[in-house]
Parts: sequence; C-alpha cells; structure tokens
Amino acid sequence: MEQTNGNVSNGAHGETNAFLRQLFEMMLTEGIEKGLSRDSKVVEFKHPKDLEKIMNLKIDGEGASDQDLLDVCSDVIKYSVKAGHPHFFNQLFGGIDQYSLGGSWLTDCMNTSQYTYEVAPVFTLMEKVVLTKMLELIGFNDGDAIFTPGGSMANMYAINVARFQRYPEVKQVGMAGVPKLCLLTSDKGHYSFKKGASFLGIGMDNVIPVKTNDGGKMIPVELETKILELKEQGLEPYFVNATAGTTVLGVFDPLDEIADICKKYGLWMHVDAAWGGSVLLSQKHKHMMKGIERADSMTWNPHKMMGPPLQCAAFLTRHKDLLKDCHCANARYLFQQDKFYDVSYDTGDKAIQCGRKVDALKLWMMWKAKGDSGFERDVDKLIELSRYLTNQMRNREGFRVVAEPECTNVCFWYIPPSLRGQEETSEWWQKVAKVAPVIKQRMTEQGTMLIGYQPDGDRVNFFRMIVSNMSAEIEDMTFVVNEIERLGKDL
Amino acid sequence: MEQTNGNVSNGAHGETNAFLRQLFEMMLTEGIEKGLSRDSKVVEFKHPKDLEKIMNLKIDGEGASDQDLLDVCSDVIKYSVKAGHPHFFNQLFGGIDQYSLGGSWLTDCMNTSQYTYEVAPVFTLMEKVVLTKMLELIGFNDGDAIFTPGGSMANMYAINVARFQRYPEVKQVGMAGVPKLCLLTSDKGHYSFKKGASFLGIGMDNVIPVKTNDGGKMIPVELETKILELKEQGLEPYFVNATAGTTVLGVFDPLDEIADICKKYGLWMHVDAAWGGSVLLSQKHKHMMKGIERADSMTWNPHKMMGPPLQCAAFLTRHKDLLKDCHCANARYLFQQDKFYDVSYDTGDKAIQCGRKVDALKLWMMWKAKGDSGFERDVDKLIELSRYLTNQMRNREGFRVVAEPECTNVCFWYIPPSLRGQEETSEWWQKVAKVAPVIKQRMTEQGTMLIGYQPDGDRVNFFRMIVSNMSAEIEDMTFVVNEIERLGKDL
Ligand SMILES: Cc1ncc(COP(=O)(O)O)c(C=O)c1O
Ligand SMILES: Cc1ncc(COP(=O)(O)O)c(C=O)c1O
Repeated sequence: MEQTNGNVSNGAHGETNAFLRQLFEMMLTEGIEKGLSRDSKVVEFKHPKDLEKIMNLKIDGEGASDQDLLDVCSDVIKYSVKAGHPHFFNQLFGGIDQYSLGGSWLTDCMNTSQYTYEVAPVFTLMEKVVLTKMLELIGFNDGDAIFTPGGSMANMYAINVARFQRYPEVKQVGMAGVPKLCLLTSDKGHYSFKKGASFLGIGMDNVIPVKTNDGGKMIPVELETKILELKEQGLEPYFVNATAGTTVLGVFDPLDEIADICKKYGLWMHVDAAWGGSVLLSQKHKHMMKGIERADSMTWNPHKMMGPPLQCAAFLTRHKDLLKDCHCANARYLFQQDKFYDVSYDTGDKAIQCGRKVDALKLWMMWKAKGDSGFERDVDKLIELSRYLTNQMRNREGFRVVAEPECTNVCFWYIPPSLRGQEETSEWWQKVAKVAPVIKQRMTEQGTMLIGYQPDGDRVNFFRMIVSNMSAEIEDMTFVVNEIERLGKDL
Repeated sequence: MEQTNGNVSNGAHGETNAFLRQLFEMMLTEGIEKGLSRDSKVVEFKHPKDLEKIMNLKIDGEGASDQDLLDVCSDVIKYSVKAGHPHFFNQLFGGIDQYSLGGSWLTDCMNTSQYTYEVAPVFTLMEKVVLTKMLELIGFNDGDAIFTPGGSMANMYAINVARFQRYPEVKQVGMAGVPKLCLLTSDKGHYSFKKGASFLGIGMDNVIPVKTNDGGKMIPVELETKILELKEQGLEPYFVNATAGTTVLGVFDPLDEIADICKKYGLWMHVDAAWGGSVLLSQKHKHMMKGIERADSMTWNPHKMMGPPLQCAAFLTRHKDLLKDCHCANARYLFQQDKFYDVSYDTGDKAIQCGRKVDALKLWMMWKAKGDSGFERDVDKLIELSRYLTNQMRNREGFRVVAEPECTNVCFWYIPPSLRGQEETSEWWQKVAKVAPVIKQRMTEQGTMLIGYQPDGDRVNFFRMIVSNMSAEIEDMTFVVNEIERLGKDL
C-alpha cells in the first residue's frame, strides 16, 4: 500500500483514502453544516493581497503532507463565499442540494467524457432522459438537445445552428460566403449574444438592440420596425432572441408576439431562458413562457433556479438533426462507424467540444430525488418568497422597488433617511447611486449576506436580490429588509 | 430537521447528509477500491437498449427514496466504464488521484463561478497560481491564461485572439470587414481546428492541411510552400497550429522550425499541446517541446496526462492584455467598476463564457500534493512504460508498431497467425483492418481492458494504446500484449 505523504502517484487505493475521508468529514461539518448555518458568515472577506498572505498558495518542488493539504482545504472553506448559505442572494445560482452534490461527486469519481457511448454508457442514457424531459416541458416533441458548458455557450450554439440552417455553406466557407447577417435581442438581453456574435465572426455591431418598455420587456412593434430598417440598410436579420427571465429585472419577453413576427419574416426564434426556463416546472407559473413551443431553440440553465452545482446548462432545439449536421466533423479516431454497438448513441459529434464533462448525472439524481412535483414545489416557493419580499419592501419606508417582478429577481433602491422627501433631481439620483456600493461593501465586510447591485440603462445603481436558494425561508426575506436598513440608515 | 425521503427541497442539513454518507462509502469501496482493482472488469458492457431496460432511468412525478437512489448509484458504478482502472487505455485521460478528486468534490461543495473575485476569492488566487506555474514552464514570462471547458475550446480561443490581434475591428464588424483568412495545421492536427473554424465563421475549407512525414510530424518546407500558395490564391494565412503530441500517433511537430517560418511571414504560432504539454514537467523529456517559448499561444489539458478529473484545460498566451481586449463586453451587472476591492482580480471578462466552472482547485491540490518533483516522476514513468511496451511489441510475433512513439501513445497492428507471412497486398491490409474492431468488441464484452483503434490516413485500423494512467505498472504492459494475443489469435 502506498503512503499518505502526498507524493503517491496514485492515491486511489487502501489507506490513501484517509485524505478523502478526512476531507469528506470536513466538507460535511465545516462546509455544509456550519458553513451554511444562519449563524455563520456568508463570507469572511479579505482583500486579494491579504488573502494571498494568509493562505500559502505557493506550490513547491516537493509534495505537501496530508495535514498541510487538509489545512488548506479548511482555509478554502473558510475564505470562500458560501454560495449555499441562505443569505447568499448575489447570483442566479445558490443553495446546496445533497442529491445533486452527490451526483456531482459520483461523476468525478467515474471521471469520463460524454462523447461516446463506449466510454459513457450510463451517462449517455441519463443525458437522454433529462434532456427529453426538458424537451417535453418546452413542447419540442421531436427535437434534439445537448448540455453545454454554460448558458453563454448554449446561446452561441443557437447563433451558430440558426446560421447553418439558413446557409449550410457557412460551415465550409465561413462568413465570406453569406450576406451580412445580423441578430436582434432586446437591450436587456444577456451580454453573451455580443460575446457570441464576436466569437462567431458576426461582430458585436451586428447584434441589434430592440427597445424594451419600462418594465424591461421587448416591445414587439419595435422589433418589427427594426427588422424592416435593417433590411432596408441591406443587412440580413436572421435571428431573434427573446429573453425569458432577464438577467437583471427578471422579466419575460412576450414570446407569442415575437413568434408571430419571426414567422412573418422567416427568422429563427431563440429563447434565452437560461434563468427563467425553470418556471416550466410549475403549472402555476409556466404561463410566463406561453408561446415557447413555437420557438426554434431555447437555452435553459438548470444550475440557476433548479440548483445542481455548476455547470449544468442545455441547448435545446425543435430541429432534430441540426446539431449533428451543423457540428459534425466525423473524427475517425473517436466516432468510428465500424463499432459493434449502435453508434447513433455517440453524441459527441453534435457538440463543438471534443471531451465533454458529464453534466447530466447530477441533474438526473436531483430530479429523481424530488420528482416533478418536488421541483414544482421548489419553483413555486421561490417565486412566492420573492413576492413576499416585494410586498415587504412596498410597505417599508426607504425601499423602492424598481419594476414589477416576474421571475424571482427583486430589484430595489434603498433611500436612506438623509435622502428621503426631497426633489428627485439628477443630483439626487447621483447620491442614490452611491448608496448601494457602500451597503454592499459593509455587508461583504461583515459577511452578513450578499446581494448584487448594478446600474441599468438610465437607472442608477440598484440592488438585484435573487431568490434562487432552496434553503431560504420567509424569515430570510425579513432579514434582508432589516439588514439593508441596518447597514444603510446612516448614509 | 428535514426527512430523507428524497422530497426535501434542501438536503444540505442534519440527517439528510445520510445519503451523502452512504454514497461516499459506496464510492470508496465499489467505485474506487473494488472498481479499480485488477481483478475487476474495466467495463460491464451492455448494449444501449439492454442497459435502458436494466437501469430504470425514468423520472417520476413523485420523488424516489434514498434507498432507490443509492441503488441507482450502485448501478451507475457497476455499468460505467472504469476510466480509473489500470487497464483503461482508451482515451488520453485515465486514472484517479485522490487529491484532485478531493479538490473536485470540494469545488462542487462550495459551488461558485469563477467570474469575479467577489464570489470566488480563493479560487481566483488559486487559478492565478497554477496558470502562472504553467506559463513559467512554457516560458511565457509576462503572459496571460485562462481555464477553458476543454482543449477544443482553448484552440478556439487561439483562433479568435489571433484573428483579433491582426484585425481588432473583427470584434465589432465580424468577418465581413477582414480579408479571407485561413489557418494551417498538419493533416494530423486535432479536429477542433475544423470545428473551431466553422464555429468562428472562418469555415472548414479555410483550415489548410499541411503534409506530415511518415512519422506524422509536420514538414516545415511543406508549411512554407503552402503559405506561399495560399497568398498567391489571394487568401490570407494568419495562423499556424503546431501539434505537440498528436492525438493518434502522439508525436511532436518541430516547433523551432515552425517558429522560424511563422516569424518570417508574420503569422501567429499556436501550439496545440492539449496532450503533450505535460512533458514540460519533465527535465528529461521537455526537449520534445523545444521552441515552445517562441510560440504566441498554447493549449494544455492537465486533465489528460496530469490526471485531474475532467474538465481541466487551459489556454495560455505570451500576449498580456489580449484575452481581455478581445473578449471583454463590460457587462455592468457583473463587472462593476465601483466595487470596493481591486477589480483587476475579476477574470470573467477575459472569457467567452459568463458563469465559469472552477477548474483550478483540483489541479492546485494535486500539484501541491505531488510537488513539481512528483509530477516529474509521474510523467517520466508514463513515458518509460510506453517505451517498455513498444519494446515488448517489437519482440513479439504478430505485433507491428505503427510509428516511433514520442508521447505515450503506442500505436500498433496485431497480425493474427492466419495473416502472418503473406504478401502485404491491399487485400491483405483490408483483412488486417477487420482485426482491431473484433478484438475491441471482445475486450469490451469481456471487460478485460479498453484500448481504442482507428484508421489514419492510408493506414488501416490500428490500435492506439494510451499510457495516461498513473496506476498502470510494468505488469499491466505485459498484460496488454498477452491479452491482445489471447483475444485475437484465432482471427
Ligand atoms: C491534440 C489534441 N488537441 C485538442 C484536443 C481536444 O481536447 P478536449 O477533448 O479537451 O476538447 C485533443 C483531444 O483529444 C487532442 O488530442
Ligand atoms: C438571461 C441569461 N442568459 C444567459 C446567461 C449566461 O449563462 P452562463 O452564466 O451559464 O453562461 C445568463 C447568466 O446569468 C443570463 O442571466
């Protein structure tokens, strides 16, 4: 048996599992039980230079001992942000679910790549099961889908397969062979369309913003006007993105009306539901995505509202063979056609990746553990909490809700007493703009909770509070309001 | 405390960790100890339709019990390929290292995204440490780097930043605004350049293959000839990929000579060292990458030879601000400039992704555990094993080595007794072509080992045996030769 001094070349056997055992106990007690308790801090913040000093991250010529490594692990837990903590509201993800965490751990234990059935038999079938469920919920009954490393990549898949469907030659000859393509998305759409257009050789300038109303939803008539304008300019609009659950305000573009326009002009309709897609799990709330079944494709990130660990995101389309036709390169060393099993189960050539991390097992496990009804209850609960919080803020002096929430984003300004009851000039708004960064600094330094803020269009800095954490309860909503007040009332 | 019936909305607390505990024990005993023992099968193969029947993968309306879930987990282990098994030689990855596995588990336990220091303080610093080490080993002393979801994506990063460096306007206006670009890579280069060129709007036809010699290395004079030819045709070659460790034969293109040509014609030199990059860890073998410090960029997948779980791949470049300049979109909701800490630590805008899985911790842990010297010993050992195997094959009747190995790929035909001593006509080769698929089927069905095969250029189907598994020993090399013979001698 090998020793546990850290220098073993393969620590998978016998006593060397000692390290894993100790780490496991540490994760359960420090990471999960203590770390996520409401009495613990969400973050023990240190500035980069200080953290570099506290944690000795240098790697040496010789290996470290198990004890040294466990000490580092303990510091990793201590100084990392507790994204699973019930007071973490900073991002569109949060919380910890033991089943998906277990699924993740098992994935890494089996460590394989999702490209062929040959090396990923179980995971290939599991991917099929969860993606089929997602396709059914959308209403893409004979479609196809794939997990991608994030929603941004899924949006890029959409931009690419839509381009290929219209001009199949683009795969071989590139953009040189096709007209000047452009795509449309609302001015509240996610920035991945810009990054994507740039990466895919279309160019950021050819991502045309469509105006939104005060609530942040795309205005259909503005979309139609833009399409006509662009055509007049000799550009070729080919792709419209509707956002279902915008990143900041959390609202849903009107899918049915956008679908009508896409149909009229023969444009690909993509729906970026990276964030909002999970409302499809709820009978009560899925109406927000009415019309989704008419789209050509959709992005859906389970790792946001559903809660499995990053990364878990899918690109889904109604067009059956398109992913394969658009992306295949027929690499002979991987996708041999003379294998002895049914090679239609090899999914790798549908991807733009080669090795592809298994992202299906953790979602499958979680879904199996909860059942459809469990996920439905979760989504309903998160939305309910966000409505409760909005009402609290409406009834509390100093809080001003930015827009009517649809998804679980609650966006608000906090107006400290010193700024209340004054004329709301632009100077006044400039003062309000400075409030959120200070409160954010204080909450971070004190570690009591984490909520993001940003300006948005004409609106100065406001908080974007996200309820995406299954361990959050009514009491945590009340905590947020009180805590914002506590941290900001002297400003 | 919540119950363990699988319907809990958040299973992170108290008794509900019961599931994780049981799963943990199962992973250690069934997944690692039993699963990776030489007495166990590498795979318990079932055809897709049969496996669908054996494993009940259907997800229901109501949640499953912990016991049901654990039963599935047990089946996941049973029917998955054991990529950590000492007789798994099928891919460029393999093996299990307890430190990187632990690092992976801890990553998922802390579940955050790598985009901002705000939500990933420790991981941001760790990413910096390991990437800096990698940059130093390459000799990019003032460069920049980022983890990407796989080597294919890293290669696409290269194609993109090189394009941007030459024509910064491409970011805004797309390919319409630039000349007809093309890129060169050897005819043994990885297929991700084709997928990438297609995805990035350059087109597969504009990936120009450069001839290789019999050993599979790019011929520099062919490169130069092609460049001149392309220019004559009015195309603009802008990017040359040299492969360091080709996918099938595992050889290294002559970097110094290619660097001379790139310099002469002002072309970006990328080195796809997804597979071979790890030889830089060895004093003895790093000469294979002589000249790497002259490249503009490099792809390096630690998840291949170094052994942390998928995904762990990096794009590295000598050009300091290029990643940021090329990819930034300045999303205001994420990369606020009025944060109270030094925002130069926010790395997210260098990526084309938004949410980015933390891939640094597992590599950091493994490297810290082994030290530089441990990794060096590992790499030396793997190469030594591959040389030992090659020699065995040279001295054993019926084995024919395809090419002189450099990396740890050992490519060979097995010529069964019935085909020995005959004239090697094309009919004869057609018969040889049928040998590997049958042996592969038998080894899979019997589960004794896994080795891939493929044709390559004019060469008919041959085995590509990869030594990438730190738990493999001399005895396993002997096993391979005997086992191939046992499985194929009647053919
Ligand atoms: C030489 C080479 N480059 C790139 C890649 C792609 O790496 P990944 O599978 O991580 O996308 C591979 C994969 O085998 C490879 O062999
Ligand atoms: C609406 C929307 N689309 C896409 C994305 C990108 O998803 P990912 O971070 O997985 O790339 C986000 C991320 O927040 C988002 O809010």
